[in-house]
Amino acid sequence: MRLLVVGSVAFDAVRTPRGAVERMIGGSATYFSVAASYFTEVRVVAVVGDDFGDEHHQVFAERGVCTEGLERVPGKTFFWSGEYSADLNERRTLATDLNVFGNFEPKLPPHYRQTPYLFLGNIDPELQSRVHRQMENPQLVAGDTMNLWIESRRAQLEETLRKIGILIINDSEARLLSGEHNLVKAARAIRAMGPQTAVIKRGDNGATLFRDGEIFSVPALPLEEVHDPTGAGDSFAGGFMGYLAAHLNPGTALDPDVLRPAIVFGSVMGSFAVERFGLERLRRLTRAEIDARYDEFRRLTRFE
Amino acid sequence: MRLLVVGSVAFDAVRTPRGAVERMIGGSATYFSVAASYFTEVRVVAVVGDDFGDEHHQVFAERGVCTEGLERVPGKTFFWSGEYSADLNERRTLATDLNVFGNFEPKLPPHYRQTPYLFLGNIDPELQSRVHRQMENPQLVAGDTMNLWIESRRAQLEETLRKIGILIINDSEARLLSGEHNLVKAARAIRAMGPQTAVIKRGDNGATLFRDGEIFSVPALPLEEVHDPTGAGDSFAGGFMGYLAAHLNPGTALDPDVLRPAIVFGSVMGSFAVERFGLERLRRLTRAEIDARYDEFRRLTRFE
Repeated sequence: MRLLVVGSVAFDAVRTPRGAVERMIGGSATYFSVAASYFTEVRVVAVVGDDFGDEHHQVFAERGVCTEGLERVPGKTFFWSGEYSADLNERRTLATDLNVFGNFEPKLPPHYRQTPYLFLGNIDPELQSRVHRQMENPQLVAGDTMNLWIESRRAQLEETLRKIGILIINDSEARLLSGEHNLVKAARAIRAMGPQTAVIKRGDNGATLFRDGEIFSVPALPLEEVHDPTGAGDSFAGGFMGYLAAHLNPGTALDPDVLRPAIVFGSVMGSFAVERFGLERLRRLTRAEIDARYDEFRRLTRFE
Repeated sequence: MRLLVVGSVAFDAVRTPRGAVERMIGGSATYFSVAASYFTEVRVVAVVGDDFGDEHHQVFAERGVCTEGLERVPGKTFFWSGEYSADLNERRTLATDLNVFGNFEPKLPPHYRQTPYLFLGNIDPELQSRVHRQMENPQLVAGDTMNLWIESRRAQLEETLRKIGILIINDSEARLLSGEHNLVKAARAIRAMGPQTAVIKRGDNGATLFRDGEIFSVPALPLEEVHDPTGAGDSFAGGFMGYLAAHLNPGTALDPDVLRPAIVFGSVMGSFAVERFGLERLRRLTRAEIDARYDEFRRLTRFE
């Protein structure tokens, strides 16, 4: 089944202990759609400026991602610059130039409106709601958010949360959103705001899924070399949603036998994302490599 | 098979966000032996003062732990006092009064010397070595250490490490000992110091086992209420070693089909330890409760 994502398409400048890149394509919708494209057909809704060239379009085209919803307007593409600490656990934002993203007014091409799976990437919750309003009864809506919106756009975010079935956020965001440090309590508080399912990403400590009466945890794959953590969370969400879109039965409730592998495939895509800078590794995968890594997670976690 | 532990037996004063206890029995050898006692016969080597009464001996006696190696001398028992931060992630030591432990010279009762399984709890590595020298060819030696010894007794610690088959330490200690932040590299560096197997405890992020060509990770059980993290790591080690002592085949190499459940039973015992203050929960378990929690770990982690 088709999967629609709205989010940012950006140029990133990234500095990590393993090196630095001055300008490369990034953004939440980019990582998400490339990761999801290995599992299902993806449509992207975002905006770029006139500095966004054919070689950048190519990142979507080569993965078969539909870019009819990728609006191109005069001006410069959203630019983000950040730097990671020596242990990669802290990220400092050096620049956030919204550019054309500052006036982004998402408009869905008419044939996008019936897409059954929707992912509301990490943008202003007001924009997330506007995208949702243009959809015709999607089968499953998932979303992400961040500290900025939790702190500055609480009311709009709460409205968006009432429309979301699965919220996929990291642990510090879950704590900020819920006011609870303990993640079991945080997940319960978040689920009371709307989403029936909360997926909490914990970086190199793995990910945990919380539903009614069910908790599922998967550790992260221990990696010896992490080049660039940028986009790992969006790649996780892309792998997770891509797998769900490909394997859930239409019209039925969320099936644990699909949700659990989806969390693992999300972890697989996140683990690939961090192995090289930007999308370098993620865009050149084969399905065989993805399945082999899934088996690595199996060997990592299996006990009798 | 029998299991011998050397470590501290202490009185603890603990303050956590859930309450405070002014004086209760604690110490690494106490948590370890109570946890291990649910799996195998345990012998404890430690020293206490004349303030250590029958009700404290009872903690060992009721679990069938042999205390012939628990020396009693004039003076006061080792006393430790600590306080946890609101999120339980930071621990501040308020007092460490070695008391009788300051002159501890471990002497093994003769019939202890042939115990096949040995755990060198977190004490001065020089004392760990002296205990090891009194043993007659133990089948498996595991040990723990801490920042204090890594920083102040490096040479002695390296000598101890050459005698240890399995080192069980937490992530910050692994990083300090190896000088590597990345845990894959840290484990490799530690294994080059002697132990063929490294088990890295990661608190509420679970535990990871590193061996030649094998990595196994188990997440922590998400707990809603943590009363007191004191002793969780020692209880983990006790559950782990207790299970190994009960299930490994004498004279054979470490079997992954025994090591992996041992890591999970270690996690089970750690999860019980933190549910109440001190040994309150740990000392009153049934084997059925332990097995039920093992099944919870199965449900938490299983995917197809």
